[in-house]
Amino acid sequence: ADVKAGRGLAVAKCQTCHGLNGIATIAEAPHLAGESEIYLETQLRAFRSGKRQQEMMSIVAKDLTDEEIANLAAWYAAIRIEATMPE
Amino acid sequence: ADVKAGRGLAVAKCQTCHGLNGIATIAEAPHLAGESEIYLETQLRAFRSGKRQQEMMSIVAKDLTDEEIANLAAWYAAIRIEATMPE
Repeated sequence: ADVKAGRGLAVAKCQTCHGLNGIATIAEAPHLAGESEIYLETQLRAFRSGKRQQEMMSIVAKDLTDEEIANLAAWYAAIRIEATMPE
Repeated sequence: ADVKAGRGLAVAKCQTCHGLNGIATIAEAPHLAGESEIYLETQLRAFRSGKRQQEMMSIVAKDLTDEEIANLAAWYAAIRIEATMPE
């Protein structure tokens, strides 16, 4: 998969809600930063097929090709995250 | 919602796959760290009702009460995350 191509697609199709860095800009959308490629691909395919449904994502995912899905997953999976638990 | 109660539930029911800190231990499971309460609650309710289906989660979520869902969402939402994009 092509991380740079995925970055370009993320700018065009994902960043308004999920952020280019995968930190969501609205509470209804999940952060995607650092999620695994297999998880991201599985979810995008599920939205595309209708197995998983959500008002916005069912539209956005509908016309993605397998290659675009792989590239988007590669981009968000390439982001590193660190988590800090509350005291 | 009760963050400490959510932490206890996460130890019992979630951490094997999603990590107590919300960083997933297996590629098939998403990181949950810092996801919003509304997102986490919506997904747990969708797994519970069957609207969203996944082999493991459909079993785990089936018997959660509304209060348990709220507490779990409060725990994972209370974790802070930082994301670093690739160069």
